[in-house]
Amino acid sequence: MMTVEPNPKYPIVKVGVLGASGYTGAELVRLLASHGNAEIMLMTAEKNAGADFGSVFPQYAFGTFAKKLPKLIKIDEITPAQYEELDVLFCCLPHALTQEIVMKLPLDKVKVVDLSADFRLADVKTYATWYGHEHLCPDLQKEAVYGLTELMREQVGKARLVANPGCYPTAAQLPLIPLLKSGLILADDIIIDAKSGATGAGRAAKVGALYCEVTEGIHAYGVASHRHAPEIEQGLTGAAKKDIVVNFTPHLMPMSRGILESIYVKLAPGKSVADLRECLEKQYEDEPFVHVLPSGVAPQTRHVRGSNHVVMGIFEDRVPDRAIIISVIDNVVKGASGQALQNMNVMMGLPETMGLELAPVFP
Amino acid sequence: MMTVEPNPKYPIVKVGVLGASGYTGAELVRLLASHGNAEIMLMTAEKNAGADFGSVFPQYAFGTFAKKLPKLIKIDEITPAQYEELDVLFCCLPHALTQEIVMKLPLDKVKVVDLSADFRLADVKTYATWYGHEHLCPDLQKEAVYGLTELMREQVGKARLVANPGCYPTAAQLPLIPLLKSGLILADDIIIDAKSGATGAGRAAKVGALYCEVTEGIHAYGVASHRHAPEIEQGLTGAAKKDIVVNFTPHLMPMSRGILESIYVKLAPGKSVADLRECLEKQYEDEPFVHVLPSGVAPQTRHVRGSNHVVMGIFEDRVPDRAIIISVIDNVVKGASGQALQNMNVMMGLPETMGLELAPVFP
Amino acid sequence: MMTVEPNPKYPIVKVGVLGASGYTGAELVRLLASHGNAEIMLMTAEKNAGADFGSVFPQYAFGTFAKKLPKLIKIDEITPAQYEELDVLFCCLPHALTQEIVMKLPLDKVKVVDLSADFRLADVKTYATWYGHEHLCPDLQKEAVYGLTELMREQVGKARLVANPGCYPTAAQLPLIPLLKSGLILADDIIIDAKSGATGAGRAAKVGALYCEVTEGIHAYGVASHRHAPEIEQGLTGAAKKDIVVNFTPHLMPMSRGILESIYVKLAPGKSVADLRECLEKQYEDEPFVHVLPSGVAPQTRHVRGSNHVVMGIFEDRVPDRAIIISVIDNVVKGASGQALQNMNVMMGLPETMGLELAPVFP
Amino acid sequence: MMTVEPNPKYPIVKVGVLGASGYTGAELVRLLASHGNAEIMLMTAEKNAGADFGSVFPQYAFGTFAKKLPKLIKIDEITPAQYEELDVLFCCLPHALTQEIVMKLPLDKVKVVDLSADFRLADVKTYATWYGHEHLCPDLQKEAVYGLTELMREQVGKARLVANPGCYPTAAQLPLIPLLKSGLILADDIIIDAKSGATGAGRAAKVGALYCEVTEGIHAYGVASHRHAPEIEQGLTGAAKKDIVVNFTPHLMPMSRGILESIYVKLAPGKSVADLRECLEKQYEDEPFVHVLPSGVAPQTRHVRGSNHVVMGIFEDRVPDRAIIISVIDNVVKGASGQALQNMNVMMGLPETMGLELAPVFP
Repeated sequence: MMTVEPNPKYPIVKVGVLGASGYTGAELVRLLASHGNAEIMLMTAEKNAGADFGSVFPQYAFGTFAKKLPKLIKIDEITPAQYEELDVLFCCLPHALTQEIVMKLPLDKVKVVDLSADFRLADVKTYATWYGHEHLCPDLQKEAVYGLTELMREQVGKARLVANPGCYPTAAQLPLIPLLKSGLILADDIIIDAKSGATGAGRAAKVGALYCEVTEGIHAYGVASHRHAPEIEQGLTGAAKKDIVVNFTPHLMPMSRGILESIYVKLAPGKSVADLRECLEKQYEDEPFVHVLPSGVAPQTRHVRGSNHVVMGIFEDRVPDRAIIISVIDNVVKGASGQALQNMNVMMGLPETMGLELAPVFP
Repeated sequence: MMTVEPNPKYPIVKVGVLGASGYTGAELVRLLASHGNAEIMLMTAEKNAGADFGSVFPQYAFGTFAKKLPKLIKIDEITPAQYEELDVLFCCLPHALTQEIVMKLPLDKVKVVDLSADFRLADVKTYATWYGHEHLCPDLQKEAVYGLTELMREQVGKARLVANPGCYPTAAQLPLIPLLKSGLILADDIIIDAKSGATGAGRAAKVGALYCEVTEGIHAYGVASHRHAPEIEQGLTGAAKKDIVVNFTPHLMPMSRGILESIYVKLAPGKSVADLRECLEKQYEDEPFVHVLPSGVAPQTRHVRGSNHVVMGIFEDRVPDRAIIISVIDNVVKGASGQALQNMNVMMGLPETMGLELAPVFP
Repeated sequence: MMTVEPNPKYPIVKVGVLGASGYTGAELVRLLASHGNAEIMLMTAEKNAGADFGSVFPQYAFGTFAKKLPKLIKIDEITPAQYEELDVLFCCLPHALTQEIVMKLPLDKVKVVDLSADFRLADVKTYATWYGHEHLCPDLQKEAVYGLTELMREQVGKARLVANPGCYPTAAQLPLIPLLKSGLILADDIIIDAKSGATGAGRAAKVGALYCEVTEGIHAYGVASHRHAPEIEQGLTGAAKKDIVVNFTPHLMPMSRGILESIYVKLAPGKSVADLRECLEKQYEDEPFVHVLPSGVAPQTRHVRGSNHVVMGIFEDRVPDRAIIISVIDNVVKGASGQALQNMNVMMGLPETMGLELAPVFP
Repeated sequence: MMTVEPNPKYPIVKVGVLGASGYTGAELVRLLASHGNAEIMLMTAEKNAGADFGSVFPQYAFGTFAKKLPKLIKIDEITPAQYEELDVLFCCLPHALTQEIVMKLPLDKVKVVDLSADFRLADVKTYATWYGHEHLCPDLQKEAVYGLTELMREQVGKARLVANPGCYPTAAQLPLIPLLKSGLILADDIIIDAKSGATGAGRAAKVGALYCEVTEGIHAYGVASHRHAPEIEQGLTGAAKKDIVVNFTPHLMPMSRGILESIYVKLAPGKSVADLRECLEKQYEDEPFVHVLPSGVAPQTRHVRGSNHVVMGIFEDRVPDRAIIISVIDNVVKGASGQALQNMNVMMGLPETMGLELAPVFP
């Protein structure tokens, strides 16, 4: 939370954050605080406009970095000149509203990383089905790049509009896409049992997210109806080159940060768990953020907490021809703001890991 | 924690508890405290012999009920006369030691409810494979009754030795056995993703069970190698009348009590989720402890916390011909001490719910 | 959560609950469920009127007891006949509204236990100062009895309107009143550092009560301005026969249930910690719910969780002439619904512990 | 967890860590990972000697930084040449053993920051009284500098051996020493009610530190007998220039990291809370890590989590002439490894905040 010295080899990137009063907004600020080469020029929060960011997130009520943060304003208060001064704009707004705002932005001047779901589904009909209204800017959708960085690096590098992936889809697609592309697993029998921390529910006041309703228990929600299912299926379908429907069952559990997905797959005929391991190890061997654990070791969410890392374990099942893949991320970092920053780095030609070198916080 | 008045319609049952210093021992005492017609005659704890139970579990350091508890002694100190005075003996000892102790008990005088795994596996070879040593009393194994009360009531009622089911197997078998018996689901594609609270790890001091290692995170353990897998498979195999191997993947999460199992099954040809629901509703309609939630409602562990209830939800999957069954219990109650008491009630001809009427403790 | 058999020695008490959709309402139902001689005739919840209680608190969506609960209605829907049929009415309504409702009740027909703060402060001016509006029924205030059961048993037994004490004041006054009455501690230097679980904040959706805002941290709130301060001072002033102002500093911490108060006092000249201990032991030796731990043993909130017990420890300080008293309760039970039921029992001539025999739930 | 680029303006500091398998060891590594100008040359762990650090702390089983960590060795395996190659050695060993080890170190070659209590008490008699054995190297004690950085910066800068302060004493002394030095508060009536997270208990396997024993509850421990009391008193006595005995009551609560201390003080005659505030604001106005919140704002442990910050709030009490000071730190950072690194920076002439710029991790 101090001013980190910029690396003189790289330019200073001027960024804005729309919708800074949610957990993803706060996390962007945390990561940008240790970036060094990013300067936060504007931050919006409709309800808290006029306030200091530190009054909304008290961890920013002190410290040298915090003192330099701009006051929160309303989106309507942003002038065209302010937009044009920016290099990158992070959108952390609700869906639908996001399309309304983004369609009016000067994308030739400012690049956008959108953390909402509004530009993630390439098929606007699928979007309409799952989000309950027509897509407002289908043309813009066409140019949006799905920002699963490790698998879309090149496209992200050229994009003006990046749709930052959902948290669950990030943890699911990173292991599954390479396996499907390589034909190592069957496409029609994928079960994703996901466990998420409560930041996934956002910072809105809801009874279901109260401490007393979340602590010391677990439950499934959105069974067979969660909006991240079509997002996952879109990625897997692209990889398998055939239509895929997955079982995706998310659970809410008492932790603030973290997603663990236990993924149950069937091996393609003649394939083994060793083949799966080899495929994923090869795919990610040079990646700074994606790691495959040795045989027999199970990943834990707490070991990636606060970091942008993705850790996977691969297990042979006792059931013949089945394998278990376990994938963990911090949903607020790699599942949201960290991947957004990673995408920004790629878009701006900065080192991809800048501001994301933080070690996991355990215990 | 007070003396509950006995119900004069029923006799007083004299009970002993071997291994009372673990969590299941403490829970037995809690439930017996509100039973009314049970009197605790002896309690053992090797390391804490000589101490008051209230010095081991401070919630029993006060109150009228607590004052009447016998001092902790060593198993070796129990006299034959003391054993014979008992009606029921609860064994909460480690496996292997349990067989050693139980084989010497006067089973013609005292009935035994064993909470360990030592008499759960009918096939002593399977036992040897999974527990690492030969069964010490295979003859006794033959007469042991697997105490999944709702499905084994009659046999439990006649038993001298009841093997109280494991926590995970209880939550898995109650929904799956009726479905397999009715041929509604396929036997060869059952995936059980289980999430457990930390009492399941017991009260022994282990780094992996420390607060800082468990809070705010989740991980799988015993992947494809947990000892409850053969126990589940034994029950399902019996129901399906064909050998079954299941995927069983347990996870440790930050809660003290509770198990949630998300069970992924394939429908038998021509069968529907409505058929599954009808089967389970019919099976359990008169059961005081087992409940099927209405369509669309997902069970939560916290809503059975502290109680002997089992709650299930049944969901249609988006993947064709698949269904999701979610089952929750309190692992310390229905998954251990509560079911043990339920079995005692059945064995002694008492009302099955006696001492188990407690409402769930939420929040 | 089953129907407990009534004790034929005592009458059946017909009760109503106004404001049943909060945590104290749910807890009343939990305790009444194991009472046996209480029948819940009506329950209100303005926003959820028309719904089953089990849809608001899913732990009551199953079980025989739950099925007999009346549907939730609005207060306005209650007929005079319905009120008159009741023996006892529990009010779990917000302050101010409570006075409005209670002043219209037929108190000659139905006794009231009010869980709000509306009748706790005998001095209506103090009430106005701290609650921001004039007392609406000062005459009724005069007859209201402050229901700190152990110290007001006789008055409660004769009361028509009992003001059930606040959670913090219960834990503070039970140790302090006898000590002040006996002149063992100084009246002008009492510091109460209180730590509370999150049920104390109620079930309303507030950002500050979200899981992510409460877990893994602690903070003080209402420093030198909490409304329970005047309630505590009222009790202590009465005991000391001189005006008392206390330091009362509450903290919110990550637990659902429980209050621990660390109370720092100065000994009166010539008095010792042994004198304090003797006083409290004597005061509470025959009380079923209040317990003084042996020297050197510190009480823990988890050891009273789910129960109506109050446990105290008394410690010599290293600072000369100072003592430390630590007092724990379950804020939802002895701090609210449990004490309310205890008061009901006293008002109706039932055994005081009826429905409250539950042992603490630990772990 | 990646290699951070060194700042070419400063030298590379070669460090060793004795006792790296505890929580403070892991935290040192986390902070050093983002330091840039520190190189970890050796790490010891008696029980885990021969293992990778990542097998002890799985968050270091992956990532570029982790791969460069040296294997764990035993202390006995360290050669003199290895010691002499180091610039700074961090000792995270148990007390008593620490003195044994440190007294043999070549302090003219390698500077030591000791995180144990072994060199914190200047008076070796006090040490013997509280730690149960004679001090083994009283001469070395004389040169040890108590490393409360903000108040001892100059001495730390010249020291060969720094005794890193305890967690509780850090949070207590930073507010109290300036106030006592200025004569603003009375010396004989200081009450420190402290609440700590469970990392304070270390990583040893103890029943009392198990998840199920810590979650959802709170209790005091070491009442009037905690070893941090004399350490606090030493600092306050020095500031007040008169002997001070304090009330210090620590509590264990369910959080991994964090300490909150509610400190109750009496104002010196004629002094006001405004005077206290002015004193502390002035004392810390230029400090990067110590912050005084505006009037009326209460600090929360979660807002300093993972960071080296200290945040204080100052409150007027309703009791005349009393004030409340609330102080929060992350006990693993400012209360241990963070302050150790801060001291290293000062000792080596590096910018004091290097490696400590991390923003708090909330939520």
